[in-house]
Amino acid sequence: MKRIGVFTSGGDAPGMNAAVRAVVRTALYHGIEVYGIMRGYSGMIKGEIVKLDSTSVANIVQRGGTILKSARSQRFTTKEGRQEAFDQLVNHRIEGLVAIGGNGTFTGAELFEREFGIPTVGAPGTIDNDLYGTDYTIGYDTAVNTALDAIDKIRDTADSHDRAFFVEVMGRDSGYIAIPCAIGGGAEIVLVPEQVQSIDTVIETLQVARKRQKSSFLIIVAEGDEEGNATTIAAKVKEAIPEMDARVTVIGHIQRGGAPSAADRLLASQIGIAAVEGLLNGMRNVMAGIVDRKLVYTPFQECISRKKMINQGFMRMVEILSV
Amino acid sequence: MKRIGVFTSGGDAPGMNAAVRAVVRTALYHGIEVYGIMRGYSGMIKGEIVKLDSTSVANIVQRGGTILKSARSQRFTTKEGRQEAFDQLVNHRIEGLVAIGGNGTFTGAELFEREFGIPTVGAPGTIDNDLYGTDYTIGYDTAVNTALDAIDKIRDTADSHDRAFFVEVMGRDSGYIAIPCAIGGGAEIVLVPEQVQSIDTVIETLQVARKRQKSSFLIIVAEGDEEGNATTIAAKVKEAIPEMDARVTVIGHIQRGGAPSAADRLLASQIGIAAVEGLLNGMRNVMAGIVDRKLVYTPFQECISRKKMINQGFMRMVEILSV
Amino acid sequence: MKRIGVFTSGGDAPGMNAAVRAVVRTALYHGIEVYGIMRGYSGMIKGEIVKLDSTSVANIVQRGGTILKSARSQRFTTKEGRQEAFDQLVNHRIEGLVAIGGNGTFTGAELFEREFGIPTVGAPGTIDNDLYGTDYTIGYDTAVNTALDAIDKIRDTADSHDRAFFVEVMGRDSGYIAIPCAIGGGAEIVLVPEQVQSIDTVIETLQVARKRQKSSFLIIVAEGDEEGNATTIAAKVKEAIPEMDARVTVIGHIQRGGAPSAADRLLASQIGIAAVEGLLNGMRNVMAGIVDRKLVYTPFQECISRKKMINQGFMRMVEILSV
Amino acid sequence: MKRIGVFTSGGDAPGMNAAVRAVVRTALYHGIEVYGIMRGYSGMIKGEIVKLDSTSVANIVQRGGTILKSARSQRFTTKEGRQEAFDQLVNHRIEGLVAIGGNGTFTGAELFEREFGIPTVGAPGTIDNDLYGTDYTIGYDTAVNTALDAIDKIRDTADSHDRAFFVEVMGRDSGYIAIPCAIGGGAEIVLVPEQVQSIDTVIETLQVARKRQKSSFLIIVAEGDEEGNATTIAAKVKEAIPEMDARVTVIGHIQRGGAPSAADRLLASQIGIAAVEGLLNGMRNVMAGIVDRKLVYTPFQECISRKKMINQGFMRMVEILSV
Repeated sequence: MKRIGVFTSGGDAPGMNAAVRAVVRTALYHGIEVYGIMRGYSGMIKGEIVKLDSTSVANIVQRGGTILKSARSQRFTTKEGRQEAFDQLVNHRIEGLVAIGGNGTFTGAELFEREFGIPTVGAPGTIDNDLYGTDYTIGYDTAVNTALDAIDKIRDTADSHDRAFFVEVMGRDSGYIAIPCAIGGGAEIVLVPEQVQSIDTVIETLQVARKRQKSSFLIIVAEGDEEGNATTIAAKVKEAIPEMDARVTVIGHIQRGGAPSAADRLLASQIGIAAVEGLLNGMRNVMAGIVDRKLVYTPFQECISRKKMINQGFMRMVEILSV
Repeated sequence: MKRIGVFTSGGDAPGMNAAVRAVVRTALYHGIEVYGIMRGYSGMIKGEIVKLDSTSVANIVQRGGTILKSARSQRFTTKEGRQEAFDQLVNHRIEGLVAIGGNGTFTGAELFEREFGIPTVGAPGTIDNDLYGTDYTIGYDTAVNTALDAIDKIRDTADSHDRAFFVEVMGRDSGYIAIPCAIGGGAEIVLVPEQVQSIDTVIETLQVARKRQKSSFLIIVAEGDEEGNATTIAAKVKEAIPEMDARVTVIGHIQRGGAPSAADRLLASQIGIAAVEGLLNGMRNVMAGIVDRKLVYTPFQECISRKKMINQGFMRMVEILSV
Repeated sequence: MKRIGVFTSGGDAPGMNAAVRAVVRTALYHGIEVYGIMRGYSGMIKGEIVKLDSTSVANIVQRGGTILKSARSQRFTTKEGRQEAFDQLVNHRIEGLVAIGGNGTFTGAELFEREFGIPTVGAPGTIDNDLYGTDYTIGYDTAVNTALDAIDKIRDTADSHDRAFFVEVMGRDSGYIAIPCAIGGGAEIVLVPEQVQSIDTVIETLQVARKRQKSSFLIIVAEGDEEGNATTIAAKVKEAIPEMDARVTVIGHIQRGGAPSAADRLLASQIGIAAVEGLLNGMRNVMAGIVDRKLVYTPFQECISRKKMINQGFMRMVEILSV
Repeated sequence: MKRIGVFTSGGDAPGMNAAVRAVVRTALYHGIEVYGIMRGYSGMIKGEIVKLDSTSVANIVQRGGTILKSARSQRFTTKEGRQEAFDQLVNHRIEGLVAIGGNGTFTGAELFEREFGIPTVGAPGTIDNDLYGTDYTIGYDTAVNTALDAIDKIRDTADSHDRAFFVEVMGRDSGYIAIPCAIGGGAEIVLVPEQVQSIDTVIETLQVARKRQKSSFLIIVAEGDEEGNATTIAAKVKEAIPEMDARVTVIGHIQRGGAPSAADRLLASQIGIAAVEGLLNGMRNVMAGIVDRKLVYTPFQECISRKKMINQGFMRMVEILSV
């Protein structure tokens, strides 16, 4: 392999740039040329492909977002689109790819490899931490710290006004962000998709606590909880406990941005190196991840189909810690 | 005067604790006793009044929220309520008050003084910066920095995905928070109550910029803009430019919390000292503020009735800087 | 066991308060009384022991330092001192201890148990991450993020002025802090105790890079590197390359403070819970830790005597990434 | 005037990039071409001059350092050097300059104008805030916030260990940084060049406080205090009060870096616009500044020769607030 391409795809995540930097520098370290493909599969189809050198990735390790940009590509879901993408790679003599993204990215990469034989090694880049094959995804630690920092600020107001705050954090399908926010934010209740609690339980917990003279409350809601999002839950609670001063805050998109944390820069660097070295060692259709502090490559098929389970002990922790 | 009381009222603001600390230490410095009245007028009525010493305010200068808590008091708007409040102050032999809050707080204080003769000096504590009689209110600088920090994070995503973000910041009646966020956040457009722009102008500006190949946009909206809030404005823009990927983020309550900035700690300290010394010098029904770096006392009446105008030059700056 | 004590000892670390909170709440959850022993062994000897309830630890999860304070105790190293400490525990009917600290803390606890039979379970609280028996110590992640945040700021100046900065981070005996700072900070060179590099190698690396037109450099130095600290190393380099504009920054004590990161709050909470539950299950002379995301209890003897080795792969990463 | 140049000179300061952005966009807004001169006078002499457009300054408003870099130039202090600089400007058809920097920068600019007639308008860019003609310099507010954030962290340790910390902040000739750090950081003592306190006074203050059972102390030292820097002062205090556990921290270069605060971005934007518009209006040898919230242009001669006095009231505040 003489020349590889690298791209970011799906929602951006802090640490993607650190991963891109690691991919580029590792390629150069091994005497391989490396090209940046802009805007994921969309730019691959359009041939938005630029040569990268060591300077291209200088001073980006600390930056949020992705210098390679990201976009969804409807066209890549069609055979014609993938043919165009392949033609572009052939034109640029790119022989292998590093794909930084999530499930959708890897699904596309695998199909692409089956049809056109271009090997891809994946790097898990998403704040959601919902990918099987790695303990943590690139961006997750930063997103949790950002959400927690916001929650610390909200608690200042909750305490000052004896209020209940329903805070919605990201996580459509999982409580990975919600749970450490609840434990680290000193929340009384956490609502996550993995373990649905009825509104009645929530209301009862709050009423019991109010009887113990507790006056300010923090309820963390993962956006995907089945009982609804923070706004609907807060409305139901207010109906049941009208004397409670309840407010809603949706932390929102700030969770995707910002300088990556130390852990995310380290993880992104490890995985970026591993992705390139995997590719050079003949791997394909695998994602590089870190499990129990060891590097592992997991087939895309497994990453996509298997569900990473949340530590059940964490739910019990929230209960104990809000005693 | 031998003994004074201090309380915080209205929405909490970063720096209120620094102001409380300054009030307490200044009183002690001048050999005066000082009592903390919890939860504003509500606690005054209920007699939630505690003696404060130097240690009571140790290690709070850097904390958001208010250790004296805040609450609205319906009862204080009635004559009976104010009578009860007065009785409590008499019981505690409190002869003067420092009120940290905003317009509502000072309106109450003035009425109270007229009826019962208890002198109050006010300290402007609100993130909105909408009080006449001081260039900046305590908490404003921190709120702007918090909002701007969030905007920096959002721009990472806006740039990575070529998106338009409509970001709503606090400011029901003024663009004081929105404008520095727009200038400092590199926004293309800012919508503030003071100078209503039509949706058509917004749409036109975006379309012109899109023709210049600009692909990501930041539009800052003060919550009180007449054309609606960020969500309604974004909806109208999407209708007009459906091919634009537009998102909305409401920064919300995090703007009220967090460790106060250096400027807010300094301002809160200056004003806290000035409030006590004003009281000791026989002042009443005035707010201590800093105008052009000089200490001034402005009658409550004036603070409440006069409108602080935003620097018109700032609106032009946004236009120039988004060239 | 009806009543336990908890204390912090050794250098303070962010997350110690989160651990104290977890210990207190877990004890209460299990119907056990819990006392706080101030200033470690020193306060134990003097009987500075206070009952803690749920409110005692409210709103501390996010605070740096330790509300129980910490101190060295010369007296506890003597048999008489330990006898006094034991007498105090008996007086307060404390039957078991949770000790939050490092090697010195656990050495004392074990000796104390041998002599007086008071069981202790330890929690690893130190920014240095140099304790065997846990992947990470409480405070380590925060310290690395604090150092990295400082390094990001320093690089702004390094880049603007084409300078070389020698930045000294904490870590007398290990490069645990230095290495992620080097990888995440984009450093060209890292000097750690575990793998001594000669000054000549450093100078050569810098000279080679200068020939490649690189103009700003970041060299991270663990305070304990055998070739000397940042100041001595910078002096030697300046002697060899006088035309290089080299500066030194010692990041220092700020690495110990600040709000704990999400990871540290989570870790502290897990370990605090585990320490109490271990004690209730009859454990003694063990430290609770997390290894490969699983809770493990390791005998103090082993924690103290065994050396936790740094991942050798990390050193190679710095080399690859500075290509 | 058809074409202007902009450069940064002297120590870098947060907000310099925001100023560069404002200069470029304002020039374009008025239909003027703008060139960036790299590395200050050094790059002017060497002809390191590049055309800037709107995109050149996109996404830099939030970045520390300066994209135009900065350097000292020995050669510019000679007539030959200035002749070369002039020749380069003539070659590039640059008719006016915006100089972002401090005293040294403006001294050079004035001399240059006298000799060669190239008009310069200055923008005050330095963290030290020691320039006459503006209430605040670009970078000052950020530097104070950075130092204060570090001090907040140090106090966690000071409190936990009952220690005294001597913290040295920047400010060779003035206490502008030290004073808000002392007030906002809750320091007991501040030592600044403007008002020398004897070591004996410092020692006495500490001894009095110790008698009042105060156990942790924060002493802020401006680097230029006549009694010596933090290290020498701490040594003298330790000699006098050996039982006090005293430590020293030099905050150092981190004060120069980091994302600029909201106030600094706003100030830099105002001044950047004003500098260009001043130049277009025929001004020369003046610095644009903001005094009492109003734009003023002050002759370089005055900026350089007059001393900006620190508010004497601030010293008294530290005394009152540490009661």
